[in-house]
Amino acid sequence: MRSQPYIRIPFRSGCKLSSKAIVDTLIGELTARNLPSGSRLPPLRVVAHQLHVSKNTVAMAYTELAARGMISPDGTRGYFIARQPTVATDRDTYDVPSIRMLDAPPERLKSAGSLRQPLIDIGNVFIDRELLPLERIGQCFRSVLKQPGLHYMYDTQGHRPLREIIAARLTKRGLHAKSEWVITTTGSQQGLDVCTRALEKKSLATENPSYGIAKRLFEMNGLRTTGLPINPFEGIDLGLWEKQVTRARASAIYLTTNFQNPTGYSYSSSELHGIIDICRRLNVGIIEDDWGSDMLPYSEYRTPLRALAGSHVVYLNSFTKKLLPSLRTGYVLADDKSLPILLDAKRTGTLGTPTLIEATLFEFIDRGYYDQHLKELQRELDIRYQNCLRLLAALMPETVRWAKPGGGPVLWLELPKAIDLQRLRDRLLKKGVSINLDTENWFFGRPHLHGIRIGFAFLPPHRMQKGVEILAHAVRQEIGGAL
Amino acid sequence: MRSQPYIRIPFRSGCKLSSKAIVDTLIGELTARNLPSGSRLPPLRVVAHQLHVSKNTVAMAYTELAARGMISPDGTRGYFIARQPTVATDRDTYDVPSIRMLDAPPERLKSAGSLRQPLIDIGNVFIDRELLPLERIGQCFRSVLKQPGLHYMYDTQGHRPLREIIAARLTKRGLHAKSEWVITTTGSQQGLDVCTRALEKKSLATENPSYGIAKRLFEMNGLRTTGLPINPFEGIDLGLWEKQVTRARASAIYLTTNFQNPTGYSYSSSELHGIIDICRRLNVGIIEDDWGSDMLPYSEYRTPLRALAGSHVVYLNSFTKKLLPSLRTGYVLADDKSLPILLDAKRTGTLGTPTLIEATLFEFIDRGYYDQHLKELQRELDIRYQNCLRLLAALMPETVRWAKPGGGPVLWLELPKAIDLQRLRDRLLKKGVSINLDTENWFFGRPHLHGIRIGFAFLPPHRMQKGVEILAHAVRQEIGGAL
Repeated sequence: MRSQPYIRIPFRSGCKLSSKAIVDTLIGELTARNLPSGSRLPPLRVVAHQLHVSKNTVAMAYTELAARGMISPDGTRGYFIARQPTVATDRDTYDVPSIRMLDAPPERLKSAGSLRQPLIDIGNVFIDRELLPLERIGQCFRSVLKQPGLHYMYDTQGHRPLREIIAARLTKRGLHAKSEWVITTTGSQQGLDVCTRALEKKSLATENPSYGIAKRLFEMNGLRTTGLPINPFEGIDLGLWEKQVTRARASAIYLTTNFQNPTGYSYSSSELHGIIDICRRLNVGIIEDDWGSDMLPYSEYRTPLRALAGSHVVYLNSFTKKLLPSLRTGYVLADDKSLPILLDAKRTGTLGTPTLIEATLFEFIDRGYYDQHLKELQRELDIRYQNCLRLLAALMPETVRWAKPGGGPVLWLELPKAIDLQRLRDRLLKKGVSINLDTENWFFGRPHLHGIRIGFAFLPPHRMQKGVEILAHAVRQEIGGAL
Repeated sequence: MRSQPYIRIPFRSGCKLSSKAIVDTLIGELTARNLPSGSRLPPLRVVAHQLHVSKNTVAMAYTELAARGMISPDGTRGYFIARQPTVATDRDTYDVPSIRMLDAPPERLKSAGSLRQPLIDIGNVFIDRELLPLERIGQCFRSVLKQPGLHYMYDTQGHRPLREIIAARLTKRGLHAKSEWVITTTGSQQGLDVCTRALEKKSLATENPSYGIAKRLFEMNGLRTTGLPINPFEGIDLGLWEKQVTRARASAIYLTTNFQNPTGYSYSSSELHGIIDICRRLNVGIIEDDWGSDMLPYSEYRTPLRALAGSHVVYLNSFTKKLLPSLRTGYVLADDKSLPILLDAKRTGTLGTPTLIEATLFEFIDRGYYDQHLKELQRELDIRYQNCLRLLAALMPETVRWAKPGGGPVLWLELPKAIDLQRLRDRLLKKGVSINLDTENWFFGRPHLHGIRIGFAFLPPHRMQKGVEILAHAVRQEIGGAL
């Protein structure tokens, strides 16, 4: 039996090629389609002799090419050039139809993760990375990597030690919590996704204006959503809210009671009690997003709805902004009744979240780093908040108003109606300043506010000063132009 | 002006307490409600003198308690016991109603993450942790932590270097791919969630039996789903599939063409082409889950549907099982048309995924560790597969059949109809063996198969042998009992 003739490979002759170089040569030839598919490759000894290398070196190269599916072994008959998979292109006539999908929003929502440096971004809700404990988080990662090392498996509900320490912290703050009720999530965004997917009746009420990506989530998850107006200067009209919730037959209400985004508004104690009354009367459940309560000046401690209104309130929180956005870790606090279905919603959405991150976060909290960080952070947030108020008072024309949220990372700046906000934005972009203006995505229906969100935790003082100066100047120009 | 009298704290007297011990004592007293709210705490100098510590030590303790919201500073008047937030209990009469949510599935789906040791789990789809490159993944984490350190922000679409290297790998395999089309996901589960939430028409067809958590996902996301029968012994009846897809007016079809779960079935080339024909004729799009294609013996390389049927095929893959389940990283390959809405669905679901994990995975692939690992893994998977076939042939009674998938981590074991599968499971549990039996969650309607999934990649050889021996014995007993 004569064996099949083999093709010659144009190696750079005489060279003592490494296994990797052999692989690269062959990939080059195959990609250029110089070698007909189905042809036999030279036997190991032939190539070894040609290149003055060991047979083993050639064997390693052939094995790698086989792993890549570019050549195939055929028993003792040697290696053959594999049939090249057809490279499908967009013009391929064999295309199956595309899947009919929802329309993306007209202007794609800005990625929360987009940092538009070197613009002076005076609307950013995130906290300056200089204020975040990167070094200590890194220490905790290294420590976790040393311990049991990498955890092989994840717990769908979340790493147990992290759930336990979260429950203990919440208990100290007066919430009825236990680790069996905690579900970790990919930021509070997944917490909200999980809640809305688990709703039986797809109708919800929430604040108007609302965080744009939450609004879009409700839309994608098929919810009818009613906006309940928030006015950061006047507070909440509870009578109006009750009428709207009634008319909408909302089955749940989603609220951010501290530092609501984008208004920066925090609910008063009597508003919290009024809302509880409404929900009891109308048989409406509450989803509470408490992201801001770790950023309250100490004397301002407020009791969350979860503590005031009982354990049926589904409570969301997150470590993302306060610790490090890229960690993407938040949690839901459920109760016996809501746990199984919320857990099911997390399972079907992502199965689980990375254990290493959760173990590191546990380490960080357990060492006391988190409480210490929050204290230090708060000192700096308070300074930045006061600085922002001082700048606005000194620089803004009289017809401009702003809310004084008392803390947090954002406040609402209300501008004269005569100002065209889009034009203001464009004017500012030319001056190197970016503002947060997302009117379309924030409001349900016709906006009852006319302004922008100011983020005062993101920029260091000199950048903030520069930004507010340019903003104030542009506002004055726009007012002048509008007159 | 006389200052308000202060309460005495029952410190263990004479002791030189640390700041932490002071905090703990006060927390104990406050939790026990021994200290009336509103009362004044002793001034710093009093406690310092009492405990023989510096005023600074006491000040640190008070600051921490204030941070916890348990005491409040009041200007120069000192610190006061805060009003304790009401601890809501389940019996709290002030409860708001619970939110009406979907029912959880009757028997909660087994968490994919549950490892039921020390049972011999012969149905597990995961790969033995001993075969996974934990040491090298740890190296890559350490290296990433040293580099730019922790990334502050995430990219909603996924860490760019990872997207680029994924696109390059796919291109080498004959797919038309670019990094702008790659979206990273929390395992392929999020990939599937993203696709189904983005569907315009909520109707889907998929294999029957199907992976239970995928089926449940479709249900939660409001899809009408049609099951297309797979028979791992006979293959696919394309005529029947066409009829069913037509009748269901499915707008998309979700397929796992290699090592389908739970049957282990891989589609033949003519089946792939037949399916493409059906989808073109009926105007149905394809979602392809290619999780298994990195676990094919080299000679078995198969072209994915994405390469055969063009870039409209939405392609899912994952590193989870092959690398480390707890990393939770997969990806979607979209095209220009589907990208914006799929990205929108990821954004609304989780905003982003942890950058550190993605940067580490990039490092792992870029160093060549991934390809090397896949080769080593494949050698061992092939051995375990052959070993499993050998054990079944040696031990099973003649009336039992099993599919020979050619590789992967699972195969289907078909049992005589007379055997009560639940009873078999219970019998095996008593013998320390756990099987994967999820008939209710796998099948649409009445099951056309009567068997269990065998996972041969999870157990080391001696455990597998023990497990199959016990299984074979139990099956013989059940057959004997049924006669």
